[in-house]
Amino acid sequence: SFEDFRNDKERRDFVACATAGGVAAAFGAPIGGVFFALEEGASFMTLKLTWRCFFCAIGTALTGYLLLSVLPPEFVNQLSFLDPFPNSGPLYEQKDLSIFAVMGVLGGLLGAAFNQMNRRLTVFRLAHVTTPRKKMLELMSLTTLMAVLSFGLPFAGRCRSRPQLDTTTGIYSYASTLRPFLCAGDDSYNELASLYLQSWDDSLRILFHLPMHLQSGEPVFSTAALLCFFCPYFFMAFMTFGASVPFGLFIPSLLSGAALGRVVGQALHPLGGFAEPGVYALVMASAVLGGMCRMTISLALILLEATGNMNLLLPLSISLFLSRWVGNAFNESIYQMHIHLRKIPFLEPQCPQEARVSDLRVCEIMATEPLCLHPVDQVGRIYELLAATAHHCFPLREDDCTVFGTISRDILCSLLFLKAFSGEKSESVLRDTSAAVVTPVLPYEKVEQFFPHFPSIATICLTESEKISWIDLRPYCDTAPYLVTESTAVPRAYRLFRNLGLRHLLVISRNGHLSGILTRHDLEEEHLMASLAHSPMLLSRKVWKITKDALMRQEDGELDSYHSHESPSVSPSMP
Amino acid sequence: SFEDFRNDKERRDFVACATAGGVAAAFGAPIGGVFFALEEGASFMTLKLTWRCFFCAIGTALTGYLLLSVLPPEFVNQLSFLDPFPNSGPLYEQKDLSIFAVMGVLGGLLGAAFNQMNRRLTVFRLAHVTTPRKKMLELMSLTTLMAVLSFGLPFAGRCRSRPQLDTTTGIYSYASTLRPFLCAGDDSYNELASLYLQSWDDSLRILFHLPMHLQSGEPVFSTAALLCFFCPYFFMAFMTFGASVPFGLFIPSLLSGAALGRVVGQALHPLGGFAEPGVYALVMASAVLGGMCRMTISLALILLEATGNMNLLLPLSISLFLSRWVGNAFNESIYQMHIHLRKIPFLEPQCPQEARVSDLRVCEIMATEPLCLHPVDQVGRIYELLAATAHHCFPLREDDCTVFGTISRDILCSLLFLKAFSGEKSESVLRDTSAAVVTPVLPYEKVEQFFPHFPSIATICLTESEKISWIDLRPYCDTAPYLVTESTAVPRAYRLFRNLGLRHLLVISRNGHLSGILTRHDLEEEHLMASLAHSPMLLSRKVWKITKDALMRQEDGELDSYHSHESPSVSPSMP
Repeated sequence: SFEDFRNDKERRDFVACATAGGVAAAFGAPIGGVFFALEEGASFMTLKLTWRCFFCAIGTALTGYLLLSVLPPEFVNQLSFLDPFPNSGPLYEQKDLSIFAVMGVLGGLLGAAFNQMNRRLTVFRLAHVTTPRKKMLELMSLTTLMAVLSFGLPFAGRCRSRPQLDTTTGIYSYASTLRPFLCAGDDSYNELASLYLQSWDDSLRILFHLPMHLQSGEPVFSTAALLCFFCPYFFMAFMTFGASVPFGLFIPSLLSGAALGRVVGQALHPLGGFAEPGVYALVMASAVLGGMCRMTISLALILLEATGNMNLLLPLSISLFLSRWVGNAFNESIYQMHIHLRKIPFLEPQCPQEARVSDLRVCEIMATEPLCLHPVDQVGRIYELLAATAHHCFPLREDDCTVFGTISRDILCSLLFLKAFSGEKSESVLRDTSAAVVTPVLPYEKVEQFFPHFPSIATICLTESEKISWIDLRPYCDTAPYLVTESTAVPRAYRLFRNLGLRHLLVISRNGHLSGILTRHDLEEEHLMASLAHSPMLLSRKVWKITKDALMRQEDGELDSYHSHESPSVSPSMP
Repeated sequence: SFEDFRNDKERRDFVACATAGGVAAAFGAPIGGVFFALEEGASFMTLKLTWRCFFCAIGTALTGYLLLSVLPPEFVNQLSFLDPFPNSGPLYEQKDLSIFAVMGVLGGLLGAAFNQMNRRLTVFRLAHVTTPRKKMLELMSLTTLMAVLSFGLPFAGRCRSRPQLDTTTGIYSYASTLRPFLCAGDDSYNELASLYLQSWDDSLRILFHLPMHLQSGEPVFSTAALLCFFCPYFFMAFMTFGASVPFGLFIPSLLSGAALGRVVGQALHPLGGFAEPGVYALVMASAVLGGMCRMTISLALILLEATGNMNLLLPLSISLFLSRWVGNAFNESIYQMHIHLRKIPFLEPQCPQEARVSDLRVCEIMATEPLCLHPVDQVGRIYELLAATAHHCFPLREDDCTVFGTISRDILCSLLFLKAFSGEKSESVLRDTSAAVVTPVLPYEKVEQFFPHFPSIATICLTESEKISWIDLRPYCDTAPYLVTESTAVPRAYRLFRNLGLRHLLVISRNGHLSGILTRHDLEEEHLMASLAHSPMLLSRKVWKITKDALMRQEDGELDSYHSHESPSVSPSMP
């Protein structure tokens, strides 16, 4: 039944599957789509999710294939956004690999510069472009700028003569998309118009698949023309990324990278024996995009599948690895940067380095004295708590300070909305939580009916008599939430959040008393750094830690307390 | 420094990386290798591990590529075990997809039958072939059988005439490997000798790449010859898998599947317009192997990379999905089967269905009264505990029954071996664990020096006076182990083990007292089923559970206690 899908985890999985299917459809790359969803989308990956994504992506590919064979070619002509590179002979030589490596480094530098500039622009945008009116104005000016550049530059393009080509070859079909634009007749084409006044996939195909020369003598595109395409496109990508309307990153960076790669290829061609400029264009395109978004496997797969040639794996991997490493030496990926600038509580795969080296404990970063409810509590108090905070979850604390469980805001709101009060019983009976028999007032189907849009606290109205009645939360709560003790090392708690996809984690003292609560915000790098700055004791602990932290990793592969109970006064020298 | 690699987690990661590199080298499939390591090898997957595997696989591919261009062709001629299928035109038509689906179902049935037969054989083998002598005898007979079949059958093969072919075409190079064997001169070839008396990769190439006919008239291989190759190979694969020496599964099943696929392709060819038999051979080979090992993504990727043609993704995915589904309807994969038969505590990605549907709790499956140590304990007691059990980890319990931490067998053995006793202090001082200052007797480097081969308890000799001295375990223990409460649902504990790669998990009562310990063995399907059978109370809980278990999943995507405190007597009807 579909009931099993009505929860947040399945919703997240569905988003990941749809991402895989979307990439499969947009780029004709099902496996690249699966890896994209896992590498960029999913907060934690499981085999089951991988299979689901793969199934979804293959379904997309199958649908595309069947549509392609049924529909007339005017509607759909091919699934991939690129054409296959022929796999009959070698596309590159050994010495090209070093050029690809240099391109990877160059791409990493360009990407890092792009991210740095875009960061400043985004900070400015978040501070100043705030009202709908300003956003509209920004979009209008960006669109005008782009239109002026795209349509204005072709007027400056040179006309070149178009040679007679055999109409049956593949090159003819690419050469026929070169645009005459203002040039005299069909025998000539305008360089810049052929790049700018095209659909983006035709521009990419021209850059990737046209050979160096259509006829002996001058190349298809002059270096000046290619640079006149690269610079404005790179600039426009930087201006538009992060604006109020998604302009995209993939296509502009692939296009500008491809133009730059062709420049390199054309410069090397006279030296003899190097690969076709189209291969350089592809590798440089991947390096520029990789330098911005720091993806490796998924990007390599997307481009491999789109070009349909497995021999390109090595060049693409080399350039993507290097662009990632070089870029990461300067700043973080553009996606992470925007996530951080927008203050979304996204946890990176690894705990920040500072918390791993220093001996930071959970009790030093947690929120102490969490807002708690009693397992049987008064409706008015619950209402006030919900209205005063935006917390997603509340611990239920017994009178002896031990944890009974947790209950989510959604369920509390549903219960109040449905007025599920067990008010007729007297307080003393209800407060005796050792009583075994607890019958839920509402069955599951009732409480769950609002998913995923549970009533907000603002929509709930309670009378005074309702506010003094009691509600038994025990049947609706999670009686065994995840918990850690106060002395747990922060990296271990981080790992719990990340590997289990948690939103909150209870912290208990050694005797089971609730002492705090951790949320994703507490584990963000900024908060961890602030906690470190306020814990002078840590410095002395650190001395021990650095040399000794690996011992406990043998237990379960995580840094942990080798020596958690020493006082700060212990000397690190041997007794 | 390399110190960071000296722990069990890194060792496991290294094995996964090496797996990826090995598949990359053996099959020329780096990305397939990465997915193989993740799908079959890694117990839990992370992005970091994926990157490491990818780096390793690309390093392999790069080394291979460079060797290929340096060494003379006698040593290495190509990296992939298959040749590329040309990507210039379509390899199959729409109607072929339904044939591929049928092949997937057939492969699933064959694989399930193979696994079932091999299971019986393995049970027999584990029971009877136990001594080295018997193992040697088994291997000798298997080898003899294989040799007789492989060399005997070609004597029964028919001779066929070999046509004159253009020596520049690709087909010529395949046709030239057809073996004359006892036939008159180079103008003819022996069908069965051409399949049997080859290296396995040449046999696969012939089956995949030779067209239906070399000349008009009869096909390259008769159906009888192909079946005379399929049946013995399938039989031999069944006989040898699981023997004392690894014979391999991939190659025999690919070879027999390819022969069967060619039979189908040759049968369909007269009907006109279908794909070449080589494509059917590839799809059927994947279906037969997929039916045995139930891999989808990794197998599709390995074959895609080996054949270098992305257009084959759809046929391979369809056949692999179907062979997996059909096979799983009958039994588990051959790898899982052997893991279970050999009683290795490997946890499947998903908690067994029974524990998810029933409301099984951790306290119902855990080992109660675990063997504990005191934070400061007597050497003799530690020695006896280590000698009497094989446990990997021991909880440290305070006098008030709360958990102080855990300590591993390896570290205890090291401490005893190194005689790290703090014996000179009096018992009363040592036993006062509230004392803040604890100085470790040995530094980290000393305790860790034995990794990964820590001293076994049998190698440790202690004098009587040493046995009555005391040892302070606090500096060496993990003071914040992972723990759960008694009422935790089993699927949640399962998820902790699986997602964090745990070997043991402490169970505490609500007030922090240690009440039990969970290990991987407690979470195996057999043990869970036994616990279910012994918990009659569960039946009444189950009624609630089935309709209501989804509510708490909204919290963190895991089935949990909607209603954990009801007594078994609660009626499921509404009040």
